This record gives sequence, C-alpha cells and structure tokens, in this order.
Amino acid sequence: MSGKPTLAIIGGTGALGSGLARRWAAAGYDVVIGSRTADKAEAMARTIDAASGGTAVRGATNAAAAEAGGVIMLAVPWASHAAILDEIKPHVAGKIVIDATVPLVPPKVARVQLPAETSAAVAAQTRLGAAARVVAAFHNVAANKLQTDAPIDCDVLVFADAAEDRAIVIALAEAAGLYGVHAGPLANAVAAEALTSVLIGINRHYKVPGAGIRITGLGKS
Amino acid sequence: MSGKPTLAIIGGTGALGSGLARRWAAAGYDVVIGSRTADKAEAMARTIDAASGGTAVRGATNAAAAEAGGVIMLAVPWASHAAILDEIKPHVAGKIVIDATVPLVPPKVARVQLPAETSAAVAAQTRLGAAARVVAAFHNVAANKLQTDAPIDCDVLVFADAAEDRAIVIALAEAAGLYGVHAGPLANAVAAEALTSVLIGINRHYKVPGAGIRITGLGKS
Repeated sequence: MSGKPTLAIIGGTGALGSGLARRWAAAGYDVVIGSRTADKAEAMARTIDAASGGTAVRGATNAAAAEAGGVIMLAVPWASHAAILDEIKPHVAGKIVIDATVPLVPPKVARVQLPAETSAAVAAQTRLGAAARVVAAFHNVAANKLQTDAPIDCDVLVFADAAEDRAIVIALAEAAGLYGVHAGPLANAVAAEALTSVLIGINRHYKVPGAGIRITGLGKS
Repeated sequence: MSGKPTLAIIGGTGALGSGLARRWAAAGYDVVIGSRTADKAEAMARTIDAASGGTAVRGATNAAAAEAGGVIMLAVPWASHAAILDEIKPHVAGKIVIDATVPLVPPKVARVQLPAETSAAVAAQTRLGAAARVVAAFHNVAANKLQTDAPIDCDVLVFADAAEDRAIVIALAEAAGLYGVHAGPLANAVAAEALTSVLIGINRHYKVPGAGIRITGLGKS
C-alpha cells in the first residue's frame, strides 16, 4: 500500500461518496469517510467494510477526515458546499481537494443555473484559498452505478490548473474503474457541472436510469 | 422534396456551414448559403453543387438567405454574432434559428470564458426577440469531419425551450448523418458551448484531430 495517500471523503455517507469509498477501498486505498457526525460516518464505514470483508474504511467528522486525508474528496450538496469548505479549510494546505459538486438549484435540477462564481469548482478554490489544489471531477457519473463493480459507461472529465494534479485524479478515477480525461483548467469545470443538469434532463426525457458521457476520438476504445 | 423547408445557412462559407450545406443538400434539402457578399456565397454554392453534381445549393447575402430560409442555421464566429443577428432579425419571425455559435475568446480558445448572457444561445434569443424560435445545436462536431460522408463519432446536443423545436433540429441532425439528443431548455446550451473549449483543449493535450462526445445510456448503440 505504500505510496497510496489516505483518501478522505467529505460527505462520504451519500451515494457518490460511499460509492467511491467502496471502489477505492477495493483498490487498496485507506479511506476515511467524513460526515457531519462521526457516528454516521463510522456506520457507513462499517457497512462498506462488512460488504467487502476488508478493514480499509473508517469514519470521522468532516474536519477530522480532512485532517487525516492526503487527498480530500468533496461529495456534498451545493447547499452545504460553502459551509463545509469553511469547515475543512484548516486542513487543506498543499493537498489535492477533488470537488464533484454540481450547483443544482432545486426544484429545477435539469436546468443549468450557474452560481455567481460561474462554477462550484471556482467557488471552492476561491473559498479555500491558493494553498488548496482544487481539482474538479466525477460530476457526470451516476452515483448509484458506483455501488457495484459493474463497468460504468461514462468518462470522468478532470479539471485543474496544474496538469500534474489532473494526472493524480485521473489515476484515482482509474482506480475506481473509470476513465479520466484531461479537460483543462479549473475554469472549464463549468462544462461538466452544466452537463450534469443536461444528463438529469436526458434521464427524464428518455426515461433511462443513468445517461453519461464519453469523449470520442481519443483512440481509447 | 415537399415538406422539406429551405435551409438558410448564415456564415455558410465557413467549415461548419459549408459542411452542413453539403450534407443537407445531399439529403434532399434546398440550401441557401449566406455570406457577407452574395458573390462569396454563390462561389461556395457552386463548389458544393459541382462536387455533388446537384443543383440544390445557391448563394445570397446573409439577409437575403435568412429571408429565403424556412429554417435558419447560424454558423458564424462569436465576434460577428451580434452584428449578424441584427442583420437577420427582420427575417426570423416564427422561424427556427439554429445557433451553433460558441463564445470563444481568442487566443485562449481552450479556456471557457462565458459571455455576460451566460451563453451565445441565450444572447441570440435576447437579441432576436421572442418571435424567433432559437435552438442551440452543432457546437461539438469537428467542422472538418462534415466535409466528407464518413460517419462522425459525435452526438449533437440540442437545446430549446420547446420540445417540438428540438425535435425538428434533431431530424436535421439526422439528415446530416448525426445523432441528435434532447438536451433541455435553451438555458442549458452553456453546457455544449463550454464543452467546445474543453474539446479544443483535449485535442491539444492528446494530440488528436477531433475529439467529440457521445451520450451513453440511451440504448442507442
């Protein structure tokens, strides 16, 4: 396991966070699930470990998880985004913070409604400050599909200003069984965030459970 | 040919416009290419007709083309967008106006830089007024790929507030050999517009000629 950072998953009791937790634990990473209360996080950790027969997952408060993590994954709703960023801010210096947040505004979640900062990712970088290495990714994957080991027909667009930070998250996507794509600077994250509302609308219009996206022309398949 | 509207392609001498013109002419549509000068438009029309052996394409000024068109396709650069909208505005009432414009800001075309109106599509609807039925589409297709009859590995996200207007443009995408997808209201067009900068960046990063996107999970292939 040497060389593998501990992965803190903030909001790790939700569908996206817990799905990534189980896939990353299965890939040999130590995972700390963060939640509002340590009890809730610990319960989810026990559930994931019990299902896999492993011991790689533990639970903590969001702040304690962020402190423990070498890489921090944010899987929180837009409504909690700012408050949770403030909570973890003391623990992010020099660390990669992966933000999957989509700025959905209920009830019209199939309509793109951009925040003042243009994207949740840029809002996160602004709020956490320059010491955090914010990488935006995992916006378009249907969270329920992460709960099994079945292949997922969806690429992961990865945005960050530093190519080496994108590469680290692309490797984490791969560890979760997903294909990550260098998708440019953090400012471009609005594309994937907006696309999530489009995919929600496509699911409704076509009555399908989980539309996704693939980038073509890369010669990958 | 009955039932097929005449298609006016504003900015039809460019790669995107001329590529769609040749594919739509081959599918049996009458096409009027619009350009700043009628001469330039007519020259492109003759080139396309000569290549196909057909007579379906003619040229005109942008305004005259818009007047002649039952459906109007906008394939113009962002820098000319506002001025050309003003030029065609007298001729758009009740017509579908397909806008493929991506608000690229050179030289950083691989960086998403949203306009004040959030998207070119919403800017077009605002500028043309409610009488125009603006539909946003064809943002992500590599224009050079439209110049041949080869299959194109890229879906067309189609945005409009009225589902029936989206359906008309989805049929036109199909006539051009492309798969169109209902992608929600015009406000969602920012997703495809932003994605174009992402795809330009992907082409550069991976050194590929024309990355595209596919929507997965529709059971279409």
